[in-house]
Formats: sequence, C-alpha cells, structure tokens
Amino acid sequence: MKYMDIDQILEAVSRQELTAAEAKALLSPKGFAEMNFACVDTDRERRCGWPEVIYGAGKTAEQIIAILERLRLSTKKNIMATRCDAEKAAAVLEKCPGTEYDPVSRIVYLRQNTEAAVGCVAVLCAGTSDLPVAEEAALTAELMGAAVERAYDVGVAGLHRLLARQELLSRAKVVVVAAGMEGALPSVVGGLTAAPLIAVPTSIGYGASFQGLSALLAMLNSCASGMSVVNIDNGFGAGYLAAVINAQSK
Amino acid sequence: MKYMDIDQILEAVSRQELTAAEAKALLSPKGFAEMNFACVDTDRERRCGWPEVIYGAGKTAEQIIAILERLRLSTKKNIMATRCDAEKAAAVLEKCPGTEYDPVSRIVYLRQNTEAAVGCVAVLCAGTSDLPVAEEAALTAELMGAAVERAYDVGVAGLHRLLARQELLSRAKVVVVAAGMEGALPSVVGGLTAAPLIAVPTSIGYGASFQGLSALLAMLNSCASGMSVVNIDNGFGAGYLAAVINAQSK
Amino acid sequence: MKYMDIDQILEAVSRQELTAAEAKALLSPKGFAEMNFACVDTDRERRCGWPEVIYGAGKTAEQIIAILERLRLSTKKNIMATRCDAEKAAAVLEKCPGTEYDPVSRIVYLRQNTEAAVGCVAVLCAGTSDLPVAEEAALTAELMGAAVERAYDVGVAGLHRLLARQELLSRAKVVVVAAGMEGALPSVVGGLTAAPLIAVPTSIGYGASFQGLSALLAMLNSCASGMSVVNIDNGFGAGYLAAVINAQSK
Amino acid sequence: MKYMDIDQILEAVSRQELTAAEAKALLSPKGFAEMNFACVDTDRERRCGWPEVIYGAGKTAEQIIAILERLRLSTKKNIMATRCDAEKAAAVLEKCPGTEYDPVSRIVYLRQNTEAAVGCVAVLCAGTSDLPVAEEAALTAELMGAAVERAYDVGVAGLHRLLARQELLSRAKVVVVAAGMEGALPSVVGGLTAAPLIAVPTSIGYGASFQGLSALLAMLNSCASGMSVVNIDNGFGAGYLAAVINAQSK
Amino acid sequence: MKYMDIDQILEAVSRQELTAAEAKALLSPKGFAEMNFACVDTDRERRCGWPEVIYGAGKTAEQIIAILERLRLSTKKNIMATRCDAEKAAAVLEKCPGTEYDPVSRIVYLRQNTEAAVGCVAVLCAGTSDLPVAEEAALTAELMGAAVERAYDVGVAGLHRLLARQELLSRAKVVVVAAGMEGALPSVVGGLTAAPLIAVPTSIGYGASFQGLSALLAMLNSCASGMSVVNIDNGFGAGYLAAVINAQSK
Amino acid sequence: MKYMDIDQILEAVSRQELTAAEAKALLSPKGFAEMNFACVDTDRERRCGWPEVIYGAGKTAEQIIAILERLRLSTKKNIMATRCDAEKAAAVLEKCPGTEYDPVSRIVYLRQNTEAAVGCVAVLCAGTSDLPVAEEAALTAELMGAAVERAYDVGVAGLHRLLARQELLSRAKVVVVAAGMEGALPSVVGGLTAAPLIAVPTSIGYGASFQGLSALLAMLNSCASGMSVVNIDNGFGAGYLAAVINAQSK
Amino acid sequence: MKYMDIDQILEAVSRQELTAAEAKALLSPKGFAEMNFACVDTDRERRCGWPEVIYGAGKTAEQIIAILERLRLSTKKNIMATRCDAEKAAAVLEKCPGTEYDPVSRIVYLRQNTEAAVGCVAVLCAGTSDLPVAEEAALTAELMGAAVERAYDVGVAGLHRLLARQELLSRAKVVVVAAGMEGALPSVVGGLTAAPLIAVPTSIGYGASFQGLSALLAMLNSCASGMSVVNIDNGFGAGYLAAVINAQSK
Amino acid sequence: MKYMDIDQILEAVSRQELTAAEAKALLSPKGFAEMNFACVDTDRERRCGWPEVIYGAGKTAEQIIAILERLRLSTKKNIMATRCDAEKAAAVLEKCPGTEYDPVSRIVYLRQNTEAAVGCVAVLCAGTSDLPVAEEAALTAELMGAAVERAYDVGVAGLHRLLARQELLSRAKVVVVAAGMEGALPSVVGGLTAAPLIAVPTSIGYGASFQGLSALLAMLNSCASGMSVVNIDNGFGAGYLAAVINAQSK
Repeated sequence: MKYMDIDQILEAVSRQELTAAEAKALLSPKGFAEMNFACVDTDRERRCGWPEVIYGAGKTAEQIIAILERLRLSTKKNIMATRCDAEKAAAVLEKCPGTEYDPVSRIVYLRQNTEAAVGCVAVLCAGTSDLPVAEEAALTAELMGAAVERAYDVGVAGLHRLLARQELLSRAKVVVVAAGMEGALPSVVGGLTAAPLIAVPTSIGYGASFQGLSALLAMLNSCASGMSVVNIDNGFGAGYLAAVINAQSK
Repeated sequence: MKYMDIDQILEAVSRQELTAAEAKALLSPKGFAEMNFACVDTDRERRCGWPEVIYGAGKTAEQIIAILERLRLSTKKNIMATRCDAEKAAAVLEKCPGTEYDPVSRIVYLRQNTEAAVGCVAVLCAGTSDLPVAEEAALTAELMGAAVERAYDVGVAGLHRLLARQELLSRAKVVVVAAGMEGALPSVVGGLTAAPLIAVPTSIGYGASFQGLSALLAMLNSCASGMSVVNIDNGFGAGYLAAVINAQSK
Repeated sequence: MKYMDIDQILEAVSRQELTAAEAKALLSPKGFAEMNFACVDTDRERRCGWPEVIYGAGKTAEQIIAILERLRLSTKKNIMATRCDAEKAAAVLEKCPGTEYDPVSRIVYLRQNTEAAVGCVAVLCAGTSDLPVAEEAALTAELMGAAVERAYDVGVAGLHRLLARQELLSRAKVVVVAAGMEGALPSVVGGLTAAPLIAVPTSIGYGASFQGLSALLAMLNSCASGMSVVNIDNGFGAGYLAAVINAQSK
Repeated sequence: MKYMDIDQILEAVSRQELTAAEAKALLSPKGFAEMNFACVDTDRERRCGWPEVIYGAGKTAEQIIAILERLRLSTKKNIMATRCDAEKAAAVLEKCPGTEYDPVSRIVYLRQNTEAAVGCVAVLCAGTSDLPVAEEAALTAELMGAAVERAYDVGVAGLHRLLARQELLSRAKVVVVAAGMEGALPSVVGGLTAAPLIAVPTSIGYGASFQGLSALLAMLNSCASGMSVVNIDNGFGAGYLAAVINAQSK
Repeated sequence: MKYMDIDQILEAVSRQELTAAEAKALLSPKGFAEMNFACVDTDRERRCGWPEVIYGAGKTAEQIIAILERLRLSTKKNIMATRCDAEKAAAVLEKCPGTEYDPVSRIVYLRQNTEAAVGCVAVLCAGTSDLPVAEEAALTAELMGAAVERAYDVGVAGLHRLLARQELLSRAKVVVVAAGMEGALPSVVGGLTAAPLIAVPTSIGYGASFQGLSALLAMLNSCASGMSVVNIDNGFGAGYLAAVINAQSK
Repeated sequence: MKYMDIDQILEAVSRQELTAAEAKALLSPKGFAEMNFACVDTDRERRCGWPEVIYGAGKTAEQIIAILERLRLSTKKNIMATRCDAEKAAAVLEKCPGTEYDPVSRIVYLRQNTEAAVGCVAVLCAGTSDLPVAEEAALTAELMGAAVERAYDVGVAGLHRLLARQELLSRAKVVVVAAGMEGALPSVVGGLTAAPLIAVPTSIGYGASFQGLSALLAMLNSCASGMSVVNIDNGFGAGYLAAVINAQSK
Repeated sequence: MKYMDIDQILEAVSRQELTAAEAKALLSPKGFAEMNFACVDTDRERRCGWPEVIYGAGKTAEQIIAILERLRLSTKKNIMATRCDAEKAAAVLEKCPGTEYDPVSRIVYLRQNTEAAVGCVAVLCAGTSDLPVAEEAALTAELMGAAVERAYDVGVAGLHRLLARQELLSRAKVVVVAAGMEGALPSVVGGLTAAPLIAVPTSIGYGASFQGLSALLAMLNSCASGMSVVNIDNGFGAGYLAAVINAQSK
Repeated sequence: MKYMDIDQILEAVSRQELTAAEAKALLSPKGFAEMNFACVDTDRERRCGWPEVIYGAGKTAEQIIAILERLRLSTKKNIMATRCDAEKAAAVLEKCPGTEYDPVSRIVYLRQNTEAAVGCVAVLCAGTSDLPVAEEAALTAELMGAAVERAYDVGVAGLHRLLARQELLSRAKVVVVAAGMEGALPSVVGGLTAAPLIAVPTSIGYGASFQGLSALLAMLNSCASGMSVVNIDNGFGAGYLAAVINAQSK
C-alpha cells in the first residue's frame, strides 16, 4: 500500500476500499501509530520537516519491516533505516519492494523522491578507515535531497592533499568532516572555510583513542569557529543536519 | 586609527601620511601581523567570512587592547573579545574608544556594523542559572548580524512553558539551546522544530554533573535529529555558528 | 518437596516423614542454609518482606536449581531467578516442576501466589530497544503482586506520544521509566506526575553513551523532583522497589 | 500579599482591590509566571502535588526573593529555597516576612502548613561529616509533612550502632541513608528493612573517593533490593521522594 | 632434572655428570637465567623469600613449561603458574611430571614442599560469583604453606551469615575478603576483626560496576582501619601477601 | 577524668564519686556512647584491638575535643586525631591536657602508653614532597607501638640511594612505601624485600597525575608480589596496618 | 614496476614505454596519488625524510596491496605496512613480489635498502608479554636503517637483570622501553642512561590497568628526565622516532 | 663555596682548608648527599649527563636553597629549579649569589656554563596562552646549551602562520610544539618536518578540555610519525629531552 493524502483516504472510504477503522489508522489523529513494540511518530514530518528515520541497531528485521511499511503510508519522502547489517538488510529487501541497501554506510532506504539534488554538502574524511562513517553522512544527505561532494583521505599529516580542495571548501553550503585518532582535521578545515562545519569523531584508533573519545574531545575543544560536533561514529546525525542547513541555504 | 582599504592605504602613502613600512604592515602581505606575544590572523575574514574573535580568558588587558587595535585596522565588522572579567573590560574600555561591555555574557565589543539584523536565531535556556551562557550565544549572534529572540527558563520539568513557544520554534532559522544538569531540553526542542539546532551544555549542576559532563553526554546522545553540540559553556561557539547558518538562510 | 510451616514440619517429624536433621535444616535456626557454593538467606523474607531473588548471571544451571529448590521449601511467595539465558532457563524448567520462563525479560519464575494484583505500577520506556529492561521491571513487579500498566516507545522526540498517557501518570502509585541514549524521558515524566518515579538507565546507544553512562548521569542530575535512579539496565531493581512502594500505598 | 484562591481573586477584582491585569497574572492561565530571568511554574502543584522548590545555588538573593514572593501567591504549602549560604539567607529573611533559615541544611523556608506530621521517615547517616546532607533530607521531608526520625553516625565499621536501630527500621515507611567514602551503609541497611530505601552518596572522603563518585558507584551496584539512588549530596532529592512515598503509604 | 644445591652441583661436575657450562647455568652467578623470550629471576627466592611465580596469561604453554622446568632446578618450594586456561594446563601437565591443575582458581602447580600448614588465613567472599577469585587467593596461600579456612557467600545483605563466622575472624592471623558489585563486605569485616585485612575487588557486576571499578573504589575508601587493597580480581596477590603475613605471625 | 576499669567504676559508685547514670555511660553496655553529632564506638578496642581513631577532617575542634575526652575514659592506649590543621590542633591542645601536635603529619595525639617500641617498620618515600604522607604513616605506627625507621627521598631515578638501604629492607617486619607521580618505587622495593609491603600513593604531581590517580593505578598493577595498596595520601591507613602486622610478627 | 627518478621517467616517455598520463601520475605534481579509497602522500619523503608507512589495521588486503605498489614507484626506501594479521599478510606476500612478514611484530615489509645499519638503538621490555610491542619498535627501527640491540624481560621486580645491561645503556644513541602493568621500567632506565628515552606503554595487565592506561599515566608522570611517551602499544611510533634520532646522532 | 674537582679537594685537605669530613662529603663516595629532608643525587651527572634539576613545586625556599648550594659544589653545569613562584624565587635570589629568575617560565637558575649554544631547537606554540609552557621548554633547552628559536601563536586555525615557518622546521635538529585545547598543532607540524618532534599538551582550555586531557589524548593519537609526548604543561621535560637530542645531533 502506498501513501494517500487525506482526500485520497476519504475517497477510498467512500469507495469502500478502506474500512473506517483502516482510514482512522491512516489519518492517525493522535499523531502516532501504535504497534505492540513501537509507537511510530506519524506527525514527525509536520513538526520537523522529515519523517522518522529508523534506527536499525536495536531492532529485528521484522520490526524494521513493520515500521518501514507503516511509514510508507504516511510520507512521500525517502525512507531510511540506519545501522542495518547485511543479514537484516537482506530480509528487509526481500519483504519491502523498492528498498535498496548500501553496504558501506549500512543504510537500507526506499527512494520515493525524484527531485534534483540541491546545494552543496562537502563530506571530508581524514583516512581510509573513516570511510564508512563519512559515507553514512554522505548518503543520508543525498537521500534528504542534498548534492554531495566527497574528499576522502585528506588528513593533516599531508596538508597539501587538503589544500588542493580549497575550491570545494569555498563553494560548499555546509561541510562535514569525519576523523578518528587525534581528530585534528576539522580544526584545520574550519580555518579554511566560511561554511558551517559539522565534525564527526570516529572510533578509529587504538590505545589512548579510547574508541573515539580522543577525537571527540579534540573536536569539542577546537579553536576554530563555526563548528559543532555530533556523537562518535554518528555519520547519520551529521548528514541529517547538513541536509537541513543545505536545504535552507540561499 | 581606523580601517582603510587598499586604495586608502596607497593614497595615504602617496600623501606621506603613512610610511612604506606602516603601509606594508597594514597590507599584511603574509596574512598575519606579528606581535611578540601573538600572530594576529589578518587573513581570517577573507577565508572564513569573519575576523578573528579574541579569546580573552588567557590574555592580559594589554594583550587584548593591542590585538583589538590591530584588528580595527583590518576589518569593518564588529570586533569581539570574549570571556573578559569586569576588571579587564574596564581597562579595555578606557583605552579603546567606542568599545562596550556586557557583564552577563562577559563580552567586550566594538560595534562598527550598522546594518539591520536579519533572519531569526532563537536562543533558549533551561534554567535561570544557564543565563550567562545563553546570553553569550545571543550577543555573539547579534554582533554578527542576526536577529535574536530569547526564551529563558523553559526547562523540561514544566513542559507547558516550552510548548508556549512553538510559534517561535517554527519561525526560527536556527535554534540554540543551553542547558545544564541532565541536558534534556535540546532533545525535546529537537522534536518540535524543523530548524537546525545547536545544543550548548552548561556547567550548572553538582555532584554527578561533573561540571557539565552529564549535559554534554546527554546532548551528544540525543535521539533527536538535526542537532549538534559545542563545548561545555561555549555560548560563543553556538552563537557564532548560529549566525553563520542564519546569514546563509533564505 | 513443598513449603511447610513450623507446625507441618514438627508433625512430619512426629510421623517420621522427616528425620530430625532434615527438620533442622528446614527450620534453619541460624537463618541461612549452607551449600558448598552458596549460603541461602532463609531469613530474608522475615526481615525484608520478600525472599531472596536469585541473580542468575554468575551461576550455573545446577546452582540455580539447587537454590531455587531450597527457597521453595522456605516461602510461599513467587520465586524468581533473573538474567537467565535461554539455555540455563531450559535446564531449570526441565528440573524444577512448575517453573516458567520469559525470554524478553530473561526471568525464570515459579508462581506460588494466586492473590489478585493490587495498585498500579506504570512502566514506560523511551524506545523499542529499551523493551527488555522495561519488561524485567514489569514482570518483577507483577510477580511481587503489583498491577502493571505499560507504555512503550514514548520517547521525548515525539512528546505527543507521552502526553497521550497523562491519565495513566495521574493514576499510577509509582512510575518506572527506562531510557537509554540521553536519558531525558524521566525528567519529562517527572514534571507530569505526582507519583514516586524510579528511573532506569539502559545501555542502549553508542559512542559517547559509554554503555549507559550518559543516561545514568542524566538521570542522576534530573531537575525533576520525586525521582531516584537504579543501576544501568537494572530493570529488576526498579521493578522490585516499585512493587514495595506500590504495596504499601493507600 | 498572600495566597488567594480563584473566588477570592474574583471578589478582589469586583472590589477593585485588584486590577484585571493583576488578577490575570495571579490566575496564571498559561500555568507560568514570566519574569525577565525566570519563568515560574505556577501549575507545578496541580501536576506534581507540590509547588516549585527554589534551587538557590545559581541565583542571587534578589532572584530568590522575587520567586519566593510569587510562589507565596500561588500556594498554601510550605515554600523552600535550598542551597542558600548564610549571606543570601540573611537577605531573604530580611525581605520576606515569615521566612526562616536552617544553617546546617542551608534551607530557607516559609512555613504555611500547620497540619500534623504523618507517617515515619527514618534518616540515617554513616558519619558526623555526612550530617549536612542528612539534615537537608530530613528538613525537606518535614517541611513536606512527614514525621522524621534521625539516626546519625551509625556507619558499618561499628555494626552494633546500626543494629541498635532495628526497631526504627521495621517501623519506618521509607528510609533515607546518607554515606560518603565507600558508601556501604545503604547495602547493610537494605538487608535489615522491608521499607523502600533511598541512598544518598555524599562527597565526604579524599583521594580515590573522587568527590563522592566512590560512594555513588557503590550505591548503584548495591546487592540489596528495594533501594535506589539520588545524586551526590542531593539530600533535598532524597527527602522530597521520601516525603512523597511516606504521604501515600497506608 | 631436580633441584641441586651448590655441593651437589660441584659433585656432579666432578663426576662428569654435568659439564662446566651446565653447572654454571645452574649456579646462575648473575642471578638470572636467560632464555630468548624470558630472563628468569633465579635470585628472587634469596631476596624475597619465594621464587618467581609464573604469570600464565600472556605466555604460551611452551614458554610456561620452559620457565617451570628452569625454576624446578633452582628451588625446593612449590612452583605455581597462575591464570592458565584448561588447554594450556593440559599441555603443561603432559610435559611436566608432577604438576597439577585446579580449574576453579586456574592455577597449575608443582607441590615440592611437604611441611604442615601453619597459622590461619581466613578467606571470605560476598557471593557465589566471587568464588574463582577467592579460590585463587586460598590455593595460593595454601601452596605457600598457610592453613586456610573459607567462608563463602557471606555478603552484607544478610549480615547474620557473616556474624556466624565471628569465631573465625577472631582466630585468623590475616583475613582476605573478595567482593564485587558495591564492595562493602571488607568494610564490615574490618569492624569485626583485629587481624590485618586484604581486600580483593572482583569484576562481578554490571552497568555502573565498570568491571570492578566500583568495588575497587569502595575498598580504597573504606572507613575501616587495618585494611589494604589489591588489583581487581587479583586473588593471587592477596593470597601471596596473606601467606607472607601469616608465616611471620606469632 | 581518666580511664577506669570496671572495678574502679563500681568502687567509685560505691564511694558516691560517680552517679549510677555516669557509671552506666562509662560502662557503655550497648558498646557505643551517643552524642548528638556522633556515636562513639567504645567497643572497637575489644573487637579490633585498637580504639577509634578520630578523623579530624570533617569535624570542628569542639567535636574533636568531645570525642577525644570520651575516648580517654574508655582506653589506656594512645589516642589520635588525624588530619588536624594547626588551628584546630591549637584549640584541642588548649582544652585537652597532655595532648601533643605534629605539624608535618598533622596528627594530634595523647600518649598514654609507655611500653617500649617493638619490631621494625620501615617507612620509605620517593621524594621530599611525599614527606607529610610518609610521616603520617610513621607517627601512626609509632603511636601504636612500633619501632619505625625512615628512609626518605630514595626514588627510582637514583637507584643507588635505595640500594644503600638494603640492610633495612631485609631487617624490617613490614615496609611502607609512599610515592607520587609515576608511583614506581613500591615495585622496585618489592623486588628487594621479603617483608609485607604497603604502598601509599600520594597526590604529588601535576597534569596527568590526576591528583594521585597515576600513582594509585601503578601500585595496584605492580608486578611485585607481597604488596597491597591504600587510598591516595592515606598515610594513616598504611601506618595502622603496618603496626598491626608488626605487632603480631615473631 | 620499480622506482624511477625523474630522468628515468622522462626517458621512458621518450622511448614510449610510458604514456604522458602514466608519467604524470608517477611525477605526482600535486604531491599525492588519488585512489578512490585513499590519497597516497607521495611527497611525504621529501618533507619528512621517510615515505608513508601503511597502517594496516583498518584496511583490506586489496587496499594495502594497491598502496604498497604505488609507494614502490615513488621511493627507494624500505616500505612497511604495520598491524597486518597473518591472513592479510599472506595475501600481500602473494601479490607483492619481494615482501616479507614478521608474525611477532605483525609488519609486512619490502626491503629495498641495502645500506649497513648505523648507530645503536637499545630496545628493552619489562616482561615476556610485552615482546610483540617491543619487536614492532625494533623491526621498525631496523627497517629505517638503525642497528638495534634488544634486552627483554628486564622488569623492575628483579633489578639485577637490568643492571647487567648498563654497558648497553651507556652506548645506545637512543633507548626504547616497553612496559605494561605499572609501567615503572622507563623511570628506572631513565636514571641509568644519558641517551634520549622513548617509553611505550603496553596494554598488558588486567583490572585497574585499564588496557594500558595505568602504564601510560605512569610514564607521563615519570620523575626521570630526558624521556617522552607514545600511545599505548605503539611500538611502531617509538621505533620510528628512535630511528630518526639515531640517524642524526653523531 | 664553588665546585672543586677531586684534585682541588685533596689539595684543600692538604692545605687544611677542608677537614677530612668535609672532603668526604664533597667526594660523596656513595653517590648521594643526605640532608634530613632530601637525598641529593650527586652521581646523576655521571650517569645521565646532567645534574639533578630541582623540582621547586613541593619544596620550601629553604629546601631549594640548601639543595642548590649542595649542587653548586658538585657540578660546573648550569643549575635549575623549576616551578618557583615569585616569592620563593626572591628568597632564593637573595641567598644564592649569581642566581637569576625568569617569571614567565618560573625557572630560577644559576649560569655557570659559558660555552656557545649549539644546534637548533625550534619551540612552537599554538596560542598566546600556551606561552609560559613554551618558555619553560625554551629556557630549559638554552640553559642546557642549545640554540633555541621560537615561533609562537601559530595555531592551525590560520595555517599560513605556520607555513611561513617552513624554513625553520627544515633546519631544526628537534622541534618542541606546545598546544592546549584540541592539541592539533603537533600533528600538522609532524607532517612538515623531518626532525624529531616533542609534543607538550597544555592545560589551556575549558569544559571538555578537562585541564589538558583533550590535548594530551590528541597528541598521543597523532597520525604523524616521529613524534612523542610529555606530561601536560611539562615544558621542562620537553626542553630537557630536546636539549639531549640536539646535543648529540650532527
């Protein structure tokens, strides 16, 4: 079943293609749809501009499928489930027609939106190992309508690799920078751009990196202005915020 | 001495009002001005859209004055020195004509820009004690050209106080939320707005708040999307980023 | 063998169905029953109102069975073993007639009490992933005689889901709230109820959630009054305390 | 000005003793009273059973006075301001007729309620140094209507001192236990009582006590059932919750 | 090959049963025996009263065997290798005649000493799960010549179980107490005995126990006198020190 | 008033020098003496071999005086109050005849015991800055009857200073080692002595010493056997335990 | 394909053995070579004296092979990939002619340099378990041209084992010391040598070693002068720095 | 009294200008000079190449003076006492002829060495606030014979300030980099130099900088090679090590 707006729902009722109970569930007058394991926020898009995104990590494939199918009824935007491993993703793709899976960013998604990408979100990462987090940011922003440009493995130990991307940095509406270990890249990028910068610490490193704590603290204490930070490995959060800023930019 | 653009500088040289050495210092061909205790980044505005902001905490009044006077030569934007206590501020105000001081946010500033404020930055805080941090954000954003609206003491223990500000949340181009203790307010606000949200943990609290760590962790782990975090008590950083996003919004 | 009170024990001795040694062990004059790996506190119910609950995590199935069978002799209350995985549970169910297992809360239990549930314990959780902890609280309270009502997936990012439960919050004798990530839900619930509130941080989250530390600190620093906190993922502890408060409420 | 109920307010309007604007402020139709530094939650008592308690730590004497005077208009319950040092307290007592100050617990309060104390809240502490925290709990509970009994300096290094209070522990409706250093007392008390137990870690100790962290962790990990924990040094929170549980006990 | 004293070595040389090189290695004039992966301290017994104990955790079975065989040449005391899993132990037992293995404490040992046990070391633990650590302490002390008495599962939630062991506590030369979770037992025992007390925090617990940190901090901050602490789960260290104190006691 | 044994008390009653109430208080049948701020454990010496030692840090001079005077009635051993600053000490010395003060260790004491010191407790420290902690250990042990020998400023950066004390290390019944910074000295001493070793981390250091945490962790993880650890700066605890071990040594 | 200098490249172009595009890639005018997953810093050797070393931990065998082959074109120095497990190493050795693998240090390397080793780098470790980290340092230094001498298992609990290496310590140009647990060895070595000392904390230990944190803090707080520290288990970093210092020593 | 070599001492004895006891103290046959509060390591220079440096923080002016005067007898090198506040310094300068004080680095020193400075130690810092730590490093290195060049306030937010110092970075024998906040500068410098790099984290920052922890972790996790780290604010340690490396460089 596909998304119906209120007119379509009422028409379907009058054509007896929907029962009154089914229609009421779709109209979701309380703003949420109760399942026995979840309470889907069908009002989110109205308040926040984007429907719920499914956090796949703590859920079974069955739960993801049920929520995804319920969201499909309520929105015409692209639908995402993040942090899905390959096995869960396969189960969802089998049951939910039209869904796709990106194994690097581990996002399952349903493209419903065909509008052209707008603006410019630059996504940078310091090293090859930060790539999955950077891709989670990049794909999230793309699915939310942003034009994304990537510059990977441009860490501070070889500054010329970064300086070669100055044109991108001056053109971007918003910049996302993922880095692990000492987390120094966002500070350096912050001194080279006028765009808002979202820093993503990654858990790459060992020993005193303490699973990303080192990079997180570094980014929170950055001497560069115009920058803020999301949780360790939270590529999704950075991509989402980047898309929001990008969408409202001139 | 006031700001001069390159034409004015060259003209002053030709009129012999400036020596060649003085002119070279003003033109700052290397992009910085060296003092024996500092290396002022006169190229910052070109790269990042805004001149250096003076971090007053680790500097003497004499150092702040010297840097402020040097910046005055290089920019027509408002100039700020953050984290100035009353004593330092008095010394600066005495020596630097035109500077003002706000004792709540502890910012010394020189207004040079008279353009009308644009957009809408909403600054919220959870309790009365978070007010200095919220004001640092608000005044910073104002000095950078943003129209700011405040909503203070709207913490989650009395939700109706926040729900009464829904109109503001739907109108804002960007929302700044300061909170200490459990740091829950940004998560709740994040579910009520479509604007980008910048969360500022404050050091308000005691015991297991660990000087703001509790609020910081809470904000980093927020279940709300479209939100990022700055350092504990970093009202300046939040206000700066808010002003950047606000300025580039439609 | 079933529970016998002192009269029944003495009668069994006189009928020579029990030896003197067996009777002495049952009467447990020192208040505990020694096994080579445990020292079962048979006096607990007299002092604390409820018999020992078996913490299954660090014990073998054989140890759990032996303690459970010994407790059966000493109490007519329901008996519980918490944190039992499916394998241990199967072994216990096979050897201990009448025991049951709930795989979500991972509790093995023996229902001996048939009195009607009393009062009202409300158990809330923020997200689907917090469900096992919430269920551990709910089932524990039920086994201790409380009437329990659940409201799951009512996190703060969609406040209307919570506000729809106001009637429950005003009727409850005690409220249990489980949440991971930023742990904001208890603070919000605390502002909506007059009942005592027990907050349970869960280990749900990643990165800077530090396995539940973020939620724990948030709850300890809550600005809401009338609330206290148990250990991370300690649904049992919350359910136990809720049942005690509920039982003594008017 | 004293508390007036809705009838008294309307009558005062009709007698022209109150203007319409004053009456509207008192009726507080939005449920809060806005000041430029605070947003007093006048609806708290209806929702939570008790009016706002003023957290004095981050406020000036002037702010405390203003909020206290506003609360006086809205409630007939006792009003409290916690964490007031002697200087602030003196300023409040001078300006607010009827207020009193307890220098041990550092609470400023206005007694408006003359009903007899009910129930039994037992407040214990481990050592002489924990006394201020224990007294904050005790006085809070008393001001909220509870009969309180104290047993101080009964730490675990001399168990007989605690065992001599068994009668109190069996009679109490709720037990509050404050302890610093290793925080062992609540675990021992928890094994001796059937009442709900609220543990308060104190910051007493040195070295590896880390300002109360040691006691906090110990209490969160207690092997005793029926117990929960509040923030370090949060005597107020423990006393408040104890009063709530006590008030609804049979 | 068995232990030989200097006379036996020289005699063997004269009988040409040992080459000069072999004899020199046995006499170990520098006080250590070099292997390519280890430098066995053959002088330890002279300085510290006891030969090296092999820490098995970071070593291969082959390395353990080689060191054990070398130690056998240098000492007539019992030889131990701690933290050996079952697989390593099997390999050692196969290659080293006379060695035995205790799977609870995970110690491989070679009994060479047949003197009667002396003194009295009391080893207590709080719960069944602490048993492996307590046994590591107990067996270590026994192998070093101490008479050991055990009292297990005597945690503070049921004090009578501990109070029933007062006679043992007054008779012991030294007391070892292992406990996890809140680590309260040593403080209580410390108030009941005049003997030196060695506290061993265990990693038993979950959530805010942080793998034994909670118990460790509690023990370091104990209000009881005459007590000290070893590393988390370090039953060996506690047993070794207990044996040393016990051996020199009157 | 001085200590009286039971015969002397009864005789004083019969001579009407004591009232029945005074005598009962002295006999302390419950094992403790209640004051309104403390509950002095008069039974401690019987159970633990030594009377209560007053922890002066959290107490007023008046409280210390009152407890000290009460202890004087119950014991003939030396009485100590630790962690007394100079001001408190002066007040106590004025009111309590016979008391003395050592400003380095900050102990106030009353010498009542004139027996000769026995055994040998070696107290070492790594640097000059560790001296106050080492002296607290040394004086405590002396007041409890031990013969103490000191070796100060023998840190590992100049090993020959330590190696010059080998004779003392082989003669000592117990060794106390205080060190801050990296806390390496106990490990080295542990390899040079057969005596039980008590390590005391001190808070000397800066930066990543984290007020003694560095030394504490180092000592807990020592590769040397026969060693245990007390809290940071807890010279008293080390001296007390050393005296107990020393007293029961052959 | 092997390394070619600029003359050889141009000649190859003129002989049409290389296309212009291939030649340009080899000349790498921007100083880096872009792959879709990496941005190899071909200019590193010019700036830093040594080409990029591949950090194998976060990379697939395919990625390692590609980078290694690209580096081979740009340098005549030895090439290394650190932190390669056996499986990855086998894949690399199969595809990259001339590469070798050391399973202890887990380094894959390509020897291209045949100059004689110079200077003297002493590599020490405290225990057998620290050997892999020490070997990573030793092999790294050797591959960078240093003559390396090893002294393993010379921990502080048996000082004579270390004192026997005094000659090496006085001859070394730089000393690397790896140690886990309490991390005391570098402080002791620092007092015995005039050479620069690089301390490497290892993650060997348990409980309060917190995966090497204990050793790390100890080394950072060392009282010995002339010493600095690298990350936990970072044998590579220590070996690299040692080689650099050694190479520029007289 | 000035330094005398062994010939001068013996001559002085023969001239009866020195008693035998005085001569023996000067010759210091055990390698240390005992005072009642210190044990001065007079053998340090022979072993480590440089005499003891006095750590002034935990010592009284009297102690510093006594040690300094004793060192003067044993060495012809410059003598330093670090971390001396102005008051202590004044007392030392008054009593010790020839000593000088630098208030920025807080070092008291006695110049005895008049050889020309050699080599090149580059000392960089990120911001004006890091200056005292950088100066401690610089002055230490100078007093130990190094030629030092400074480049201050060259933080990463304005890279061109750093890139303008490339010539210095390529000429330096060793580079010291001090930075607080996010500690990113050493990583960037590490990619621009072939010299050994010593990173010094400073405690500059606030909130999540945790007194330098953020910078410390960043530096330990640096992706740059050829770099190591000293304790937070340990300018002395960095300067000392830099001087040692510089002195042995070609």
